[in-house]
Amino acid sequence: MKKVKYSLSVLGLAIGMAASGVSMSVSAAEPTLSEADFEKAQLHYFQRCAGCHGVLRKGATGKNLEPKNMLKKGQKRLEKIIALGTEGGMNNFDDLFTKQEIANLATFIQMKPPVPPEMSLEQMRSHTKEYVALKDYPTKPLHGLNWKNFFVVIERDAGKAAIVDGDTKKIVTHIDTGYAVHVIKGTEHHKKDHAKDVGRFWYTIGRDGKVNKIDLWQKPEKMLVAETKMAYDARDIAVSGDGKYVIAGGYWPAHFVIMDAETLNPLKVVSTRGYNTKGEFINEARVAAIYTAPNESAFIVAVKETGKMLQVDYSDLDNLTITAMESAEFLHDGFFDPSGRYFQIAANASNKMVVVDTKDAKLEMMIDVDSLPHPGPGANWTDKECGPVGATTHLGVGLVSVWGNDPINHPDQAWKLCYEVETDGAGVFIRTHPTSDYVWADQLKHPEPEVQQSVQVFDKKTREIVKTIRVTEEEGKAALHMEFSADGSEVWVSVWNRTDNSNPTGEIVVYDAKTLKEKARIKGLTTPTGKFNVSNRINHKT
Amino acid sequence: MKKVKYSLSVLGLAIGMAASGVSMSVSAAEPTLSEADFEKAQLHYFQRCAGCHGVLRKGATGKNLEPKNMLKKGQKRLEKIIALGTEGGMNNFDDLFTKQEIANLATFIQMKPPVPPEMSLEQMRSHTKEYVALKDYPTKPLHGLNWKNFFVVIERDAGKAAIVDGDTKKIVTHIDTGYAVHVIKGTEHHKKDHAKDVGRFWYTIGRDGKVNKIDLWQKPEKMLVAETKMAYDARDIAVSGDGKYVIAGGYWPAHFVIMDAETLNPLKVVSTRGYNTKGEFINEARVAAIYTAPNESAFIVAVKETGKMLQVDYSDLDNLTITAMESAEFLHDGFFDPSGRYFQIAANASNKMVVVDTKDAKLEMMIDVDSLPHPGPGANWTDKECGPVGATTHLGVGLVSVWGNDPINHPDQAWKLCYEVETDGAGVFIRTHPTSDYVWADQLKHPEPEVQQSVQVFDKKTREIVKTIRVTEEEGKAALHMEFSADGSEVWVSVWNRTDNSNPTGEIVVYDAKTLKEKARIKGLTTPTGKFNVSNRINHKT
Repeated sequence: MKKVKYSLSVLGLAIGMAASGVSMSVSAAEPTLSEADFEKAQLHYFQRCAGCHGVLRKGATGKNLEPKNMLKKGQKRLEKIIALGTEGGMNNFDDLFTKQEIANLATFIQMKPPVPPEMSLEQMRSHTKEYVALKDYPTKPLHGLNWKNFFVVIERDAGKAAIVDGDTKKIVTHIDTGYAVHVIKGTEHHKKDHAKDVGRFWYTIGRDGKVNKIDLWQKPEKMLVAETKMAYDARDIAVSGDGKYVIAGGYWPAHFVIMDAETLNPLKVVSTRGYNTKGEFINEARVAAIYTAPNESAFIVAVKETGKMLQVDYSDLDNLTITAMESAEFLHDGFFDPSGRYFQIAANASNKMVVVDTKDAKLEMMIDVDSLPHPGPGANWTDKECGPVGATTHLGVGLVSVWGNDPINHPDQAWKLCYEVETDGAGVFIRTHPTSDYVWADQLKHPEPEVQQSVQVFDKKTREIVKTIRVTEEEGKAALHMEFSADGSEVWVSVWNRTDNSNPTGEIVVYDAKTLKEKARIKGLTTPTGKFNVSNRINHKT
Repeated sequence: MKKVKYSLSVLGLAIGMAASGVSMSVSAAEPTLSEADFEKAQLHYFQRCAGCHGVLRKGATGKNLEPKNMLKKGQKRLEKIIALGTEGGMNNFDDLFTKQEIANLATFIQMKPPVPPEMSLEQMRSHTKEYVALKDYPTKPLHGLNWKNFFVVIERDAGKAAIVDGDTKKIVTHIDTGYAVHVIKGTEHHKKDHAKDVGRFWYTIGRDGKVNKIDLWQKPEKMLVAETKMAYDARDIAVSGDGKYVIAGGYWPAHFVIMDAETLNPLKVVSTRGYNTKGEFINEARVAAIYTAPNESAFIVAVKETGKMLQVDYSDLDNLTITAMESAEFLHDGFFDPSGRYFQIAANASNKMVVVDTKDAKLEMMIDVDSLPHPGPGANWTDKECGPVGATTHLGVGLVSVWGNDPINHPDQAWKLCYEVETDGAGVFIRTHPTSDYVWADQLKHPEPEVQQSVQVFDKKTREIVKTIRVTEEEGKAALHMEFSADGSEVWVSVWNRTDNSNPTGEIVVYDAKTLKEKARIKGLTTPTGKFNVSNRINHKT
């Protein structure tokens, strides 16, 4: 069928389009792949590259990889970048892909990006499954275990979530979840709404858009109770304060979906496509983070590429009220302050922490931090001078930035940098606990194994690093993501078997939170990454 | 460059896509046009077809015209439909296009629809022009005329708006506005917000997305004071209650734009792309109607293809709150009830009138009416039995439907059909005035000239048609759109010179509102259609 561009003269646009990005066709010899190689390169791109660069390759955390830019670099240069990574930017991929796979990826990104299909509510509903009928849900836990100290652990490359008993350090079960679960969230304490059995139900979101519901009261082999799929590519999920709704956000299609939390039946889908802070239309406007506001009947939805923070009122889905707060690109991940009023989120390409006020549904402040902030679960504590503070690690630099976050009682310190702590390497996650004297930061983004395999601990009082802990020394493994036990007495750190990723050779190392000494190693996990302790995640205070 | 589809296996979609509309390529000989013919057909399609069928041809008021359907019909059948129209559906176009143009259009719609470009805020701003500086705006009217009885008249195919003095029936000036102005609105009385000099400034929206600001206090030759462009294709516009913002809605791109009402500088653009009531993604989700809520600091934005009624709070543009009320497809045009609380809008393909409550920002009711309701400016009055009522004409049938619209004092009659009046032909506009005993309805959609050239008048008391008025008998002309003078003593009806559309051979015929007898003919107008009397449009009561 004849392929034509839209004639601009029809729109009265004979002049003035040069500046708007309408490009002419490229006349040089065009890169090409066989259909089979194209499909394989597309799959590799989707799994390893699209997260940072986007399926349409417009760029976000990573650079724009559209053909107009890639053709200029050429095959050889692109192969080198993919193999070895870039300074302060991309990882190396020569340990994950063969030379031929890298060559094909380099060719693939010089070709026009294929556009993935849409997904309708009806398609989502065709994926909804009930593994345990609602009427068969137990009325009390069916095991004798202390489920409030369970850790729900992502086994990323196994497509599983492990349930680990925090008291005995034993793996209760591995649950099939689908490809690369990114986040798992449960019901939480809420100021206005009140969910039944807080902490009992957990919801996973996979990078394949699959949503699973886990019932921690079930017998271990029956904990997976329901499933659906709300996108082809997704990253975050949350549960409403009343426990009635689950919301998940798509990378593609760019939308969020509100589901019935009992059955996972998709009820409502809302597109996040729209305009960025410069007023340019963004087709791939991905939902980066979703949280439930602890004090309001509202979800907070962060749209990465548009820099919009959406406060979504879940009290009336048929007349859905959303406040879109203008902030900065590219929004990524965040956490609430201890009062539950303010949400603090990284706009990582802008080197800012964005703060929104969920009480008034408005942008509160933007705080300048350093290169590519990334707090993960974040950390809140009280500083002797600044009062209540929040903190983030950075993807681009070994630095923890700490800011005041109590505008009511400490207005002079609020939303200003209080101090910074230099670490050995750029990291992804920071964590603490109200009972702990320490703050833990990982260094996952550092290229040298000895740093990537170590986490650093600093003292809340002295603001000084007190210990560097080498969590593993094994080749191809990295240390990341800290989580405290229910009572705050232990810190659990993941050892991710990054290269040997199809075997259960990853582990969790447990440290005494006071002495900082190793207490135990939980083995038999495949690529463990995020961990969620039931009691700690029930509230937002740390 | 190699053109590839997105590989569905990457998304884990090997099965189940057959139902989702992914089609295989067509193997028959493919229709083709020269580049010049393609451009011309594209322009004709854009001007005459896209309004009902969409630029992407997914269909709305008109049918889906995608190649998969059009190729089945074939060249000859398509030419016949375009030339002669369809029963109860499309107009004939053999009087507007040559045989060859019709043949090319028939071929064009069998080819893949080209996708028009996006438009950024920066591009819009490059079109913003100031013809009179703010500091040079007069502080009182610079002419001795009674501007509160001016009629602002659309001269559709001339790309002009005429200002006609209602007292003297003289044309004050013709203002250049760009292609096919669709609607003109001014500031209005508002319950909460208060605009200065209500009724002084008027804003036009062209089908080319051009926005013009008209100052009725200026000397006639200087009345055009500012201009911008907010889309390639647009239909409606409104001014905030405080007179500070102008909002206009795009057909393409599918968005609305809020501008500074003083300078027309575009401030904010919001995409309306999203999901319809069935949960299917709609790329061409066009803004059909925009109104200012008379009692709230809010705009009402109707998105045609998604069936969403948006209530847009204009009190904080940086933290923009929008309530999306689910209703029915395809939303078209509407009007407020006399209290200003309820907005009544046609969902014409659903044969419903949708009512939203702007006080609580929620869907109030959907009323079943007849085929393709279309109220235009609408009509409200008080019926002896039902109390306050609203009414609509229909595009698909010669019928006026009348419903109760006072849920506070007449709850039993509210949002229920009160009665119907059969007319001779399907129409587009209905109108009345508080001082009038009569309601007027046009019959523009009737194929027979003698009906299309006549309007019908019925009595509010007897509910019976009292007069059929043949407004014109000239070939190629049609009668449409009624507007009352400021005091309600006259009714103005347009005579649209539809075929001789490049000459000022259209006119407005003025009738005595009591005797229903012709009083005057205002000549020298090119394709006059909509007319807006300053005083009548300052409030929403009729």
